[in-house]
Amino acid sequence: MSRTKTEFRALAVRVRGEVRAGDNLAKVLLRGMEESEVTLQAGDVLVVKHKVVSKAEGRLVKLETVRPSAASRTWAKRYDLDARVTELALRESKRVVRRKRGVLITETRHGWVCANSGVDVSNVDGGTHALLLPEDADQSAAKLRRDIKRLTGIAVAVIISDSFGRAWREGLTEAAIGVAGMKPLDDLRGRRDPHGYRLRVSLEAVADELAGVAGLLCGKLKQTPACVVRGFAYPAGQGRATELVRAAAFDLFR
Amino acid sequence: MSRTKTEFRALAVRVRGEVRAGDNLAKVLLRGMEESEVTLQAGDVLVVKHKVVSKAEGRLVKLETVRPSAASRTWAKRYDLDARVTELALRESKRVVRRKRGVLITETRHGWVCANSGVDVSNVDGGTHALLLPEDADQSAAKLRRDIKRLTGIAVAVIISDSFGRAWREGLTEAAIGVAGMKPLDDLRGRRDPHGYRLRVSLEAVADELAGVAGLLCGKLKQTPACVVRGFAYPAGQGRATELVRAAAFDLFR
Repeated sequence: MSRTKTEFRALAVRVRGEVRAGDNLAKVLLRGMEESEVTLQAGDVLVVKHKVVSKAEGRLVKLETVRPSAASRTWAKRYDLDARVTELALRESKRVVRRKRGVLITETRHGWVCANSGVDVSNVDGGTHALLLPEDADQSAAKLRRDIKRLTGIAVAVIISDSFGRAWREGLTEAAIGVAGMKPLDDLRGRRDPHGYRLRVSLEAVADELAGVAGLLCGKLKQTPACVVRGFAYPAGQGRATELVRAAAFDLFR
Repeated sequence: MSRTKTEFRALAVRVRGEVRAGDNLAKVLLRGMEESEVTLQAGDVLVVKHKVVSKAEGRLVKLETVRPSAASRTWAKRYDLDARVTELALRESKRVVRRKRGVLITETRHGWVCANSGVDVSNVDGGTHALLLPEDADQSAAKLRRDIKRLTGIAVAVIISDSFGRAWREGLTEAAIGVAGMKPLDDLRGRRDPHGYRLRVSLEAVADELAGVAGLLCGKLKQTPACVVRGFAYPAGQGRATELVRAAAFDLFR
């Protein structure tokens, strides 16, 4: 047995102040890394919570500009919700999955199944604005990766995450909604275990597990919107988070 | 802004050879840590994949001793499966959630919704045996924590994990099925973000995100059934993984 240690590290990246529409997020995060004493290295995975991505991309919507439909108003009134947020959630969705007891589960245009299409008001400017998911978080991740490469010469993998509820299980976990510079799924099918027995269904969603690292480290209360995972041998290749969307026809959990 | 670094490390624990029924798992893992040059510290979280726990607890079943029912035989024949594994999966379940195209999703006695009640043959003794989930992985975790405390004087949190499929998303991720020495959910509800705005629905399933760390680090092919997460401030308290089971009445994703 080799005595080589196997380990990875997760390093929080603090960002001072608010990210604004039009900010160059790569520069913001690199400055945050400098202040957090994190020096980026080739092979690092940069995991970024989507909120700063959405903010930089101008996905903040002033709630007073939103005119909710009658249906949104009725629903919101019944459950003491903000009809404008319901309206935005419906606009961002391509399908309502469930709607019950004030909770609205939708499928977003990207294919993510989540509460309120990922529209968030909980900690954006004191409730006067809503924040939408990035238009295309895979593109956002690719751009961030490109910009970091250009600014530093260092190639990193990038994951953009959001916290989603799950079927069957309590609590939220961070999940990947954007990926660049790596494959989101580690395909072990056909490989053999130490007994020589072929692994059959091992398709590991490493991008989601890496997103979970940000869930552990990047607190909502800590102004740490990103972290760097160092030493993890991610599956090489150019993948997209949308590979994590399970086609309805193959989703037996539905 | 404080310049204090925030980080955690994840250290893989290799275990040489097979774990057998009746083995003292705490001793096996402590030996593995020594060989992996991982020195346990107070406040560490020890994440253990359930397979070694199940093996130590004698949850290996010789397939030739299993007499499948006619229903199991019909189902297995139709999809070219092993009827004895189907039979075990049904015995370990309290409810069949879905059954389609050869995939059997059940709810286990513990409340976990997963494929085949977590019954695994893929890499157990070349396919002659099946491995069941621990009878009560929360108790297994508590015992492991107690034994490690007794043997080393060090108090750690323990998570026992299995890889589960998810609704809506491709791939497996590690999820917590046993927890000891910490709370599985980090309850941020009622706390305030940097804008003073109250967080409303932030109940983070940190035990699942910690399990995901094992998913990243403890490869099926690497004989690393456990890892130590160091530097993560887990929610203090005595929790159980079964807190992660969402009551059907509150599960809008169903």
